[in-house]
Amino acid sequence: MDIIFSPDQLAHHAAAEFNRGKLGPSFEHPGRAETILAAVAASEGGNVSPPEDFGIGPILAVHDRDYVEFLRGVWDRWQAAGRPGDAMPLAWPQPELMRVRPRSIDGELGLYCADIGTPITAGTWRAAYASAQVALTAARRVHEGARYCFGLCRPPGHHAGKQMYMGYSFLNNAAIAAEWLIASGHRRITVLDVDYHHGNGTQAIFYDRADVQYVSLHADPEDAFPFFLGRADETGTGAGADTNLNLPLPEGTDWQAYSAALDTALDAIRAFGPSVVVLSLGVDTFEEDPISRFRFKAQDFVTLGRQLASLDLPMPVIMEGGYAVAALGANVASVLKGLQQGA
Amino acid sequence: MDIIFSPDQLAHHAAAEFNRGKLGPSFEHPGRAETILAAVAASEGGNVSPPEDFGIGPILAVHDRDYVEFLRGVWDRWQAAGRPGDAMPLAWPQPELMRVRPRSIDGELGLYCADIGTPITAGTWRAAYASAQVALTAARRVHEGARYCFGLCRPPGHHAGKQMYMGYSFLNNAAIAAEWLIASGHRRITVLDVDYHHGNGTQAIFYDRADVQYVSLHADPEDAFPFFLGRADETGTGAGADTNLNLPLPEGTDWQAYSAALDTALDAIRAFGPSVVVLSLGVDTFEEDPISRFRFKAQDFVTLGRQLASLDLPMPVIMEGGYAVAALGANVASVLKGLQQGA
Repeated sequence: MDIIFSPDQLAHHAAAEFNRGKLGPSFEHPGRAETILAAVAASEGGNVSPPEDFGIGPILAVHDRDYVEFLRGVWDRWQAAGRPGDAMPLAWPQPELMRVRPRSIDGELGLYCADIGTPITAGTWRAAYASAQVALTAARRVHEGARYCFGLCRPPGHHAGKQMYMGYSFLNNAAIAAEWLIASGHRRITVLDVDYHHGNGTQAIFYDRADVQYVSLHADPEDAFPFFLGRADETGTGAGADTNLNLPLPEGTDWQAYSAALDTALDAIRAFGPSVVVLSLGVDTFEEDPISRFRFKAQDFVTLGRQLASLDLPMPVIMEGGYAVAALGANVASVLKGLQQGA
Repeated sequence: MDIIFSPDQLAHHAAAEFNRGKLGPSFEHPGRAETILAAVAASEGGNVSPPEDFGIGPILAVHDRDYVEFLRGVWDRWQAAGRPGDAMPLAWPQPELMRVRPRSIDGELGLYCADIGTPITAGTWRAAYASAQVALTAARRVHEGARYCFGLCRPPGHHAGKQMYMGYSFLNNAAIAAEWLIASGHRRITVLDVDYHHGNGTQAIFYDRADVQYVSLHADPEDAFPFFLGRADETGTGAGADTNLNLPLPEGTDWQAYSAALDTALDAIRAFGPSVVVLSLGVDTFEEDPISRFRFKAQDFVTLGRQLASLDLPMPVIMEGGYAVAALGANVASVLKGLQQGA
């Protein structure tokens, strides 16, 4: 399987993040991509290519221009304001405030940011832009005939909305790839999200769309990030009615329980009938993941890949989360191996 | 002038706060109240009383019950969840998310919190409750005939909305006092806010009310916290049309420029014709304030007090901000002195 990756993706490096009341090293760091790259390059025979540059167009097909301009310029403005450290918001517009764009960089950050764990650094735009191009390149490889292509996206993307960043996500790589596939002539695309966390950004972007189905298995948002989206009763709206399927699962879910829910997901995808499935792949379902609470064993990732292959559909594989760094590369490689065994 | 204060108000003590990208000691700390108490007790001859207990009723007349229950229980739930440090949100519901109340304490914090600098600690509820009782007691003293009474509120309150905390504020002391005065028979009340920051909570609470006028002089929210409210074109809505007056001023404003805007504010108050003015008193307009950018000299606070006294109206004085600790007590005492000289 071809692997798409750019060293530019290592340019985003948060000094620290707040998590559950404690300031500590960021769980999402460049070493994640490096360990995945080493493992999959070894197991897939070294077919690593840099992304093509699709420009800003396919990004603006998903994200609001104001938001993209903000992401592109925020670090320089933060520096110009003389701020130390990574860029974080000071306040954000809850309902008793007005959703205006203040001149202050501290305020503008709050307009777009939805969590405390996603600082913006010197290299964030460069890395996020490259990560989106990786997803687009993987989509094009599949569009042009490859069965699978691994887009080693980092930073991840599935929490990013049209005008919102959170959960280590700035640009929604999977959504950008899906939208590009639609623009390239596909009539129906499914984004299947197997990350531990609900891909709230992807759901929100396609919630009213008849041509893009979003199917997600994830930790119940009553207990888990992103908390404010991902419930079973969110099924789509307007033209997108019944094109959104959330399968929230309790903390402690192991492969057996997950597999049953995955059957439901795959049935829904078959019923929708897409020509391509964009896979949002997180391996933070692993039992040793430091910020997640599912119980996948290492060998379950091969089985996951095989079960996904039963869809018998072309699939750009877009990397999302996974934070147990020691096992991260091996677990991703296992999914790719399972996909190809099953095909 | 009588002074109302409770040692319970010292129970809130944040370990640290995030400000402009840096984690440091909280600017809002118990020492603020202690230094104000020492200075005003000395200058006013030691008339310090504890607050009466008005119970939860007058608090629920301003704040939503769900929010008050949250504030009352959040620390125990944070502790029960095994979280280290002070309670802070992990994520919050921007528009592309749903405004639901998740079971997770990390999520629920995000439902009500609007900034990164207002941690909740073991003693937050006790201190905020006592601070509200101080404001109520000061209001009652004035209602019962005192010309002035100093409610040494801490934590401050003017950023807190019906269901929102931010800016070191949990319960809106001034709004609770104003609402109690209305319930006690006053037909028209003005809240005059001379803190450096716009009192967004107070504005939001009374924005559609004909019987409570809100008048504020503050740093332009384009540049200054709270960023998302406080512009000149916010004049009230519905029955409250034209009962809200914002006078945003640029960074660097000195007493001379401020005094002209204050004349406009006092004229608007005279035109409204309240029987009592609740004064939200911040002295973070001082030139040495570490987080503010106005240029009041120490002697300007006496002049401020004298100018306020020209309203010739009874006035519970509710303490809000001020973070230049060395001069804080003296500056507050100067305002109280000026008030009494002018009367």
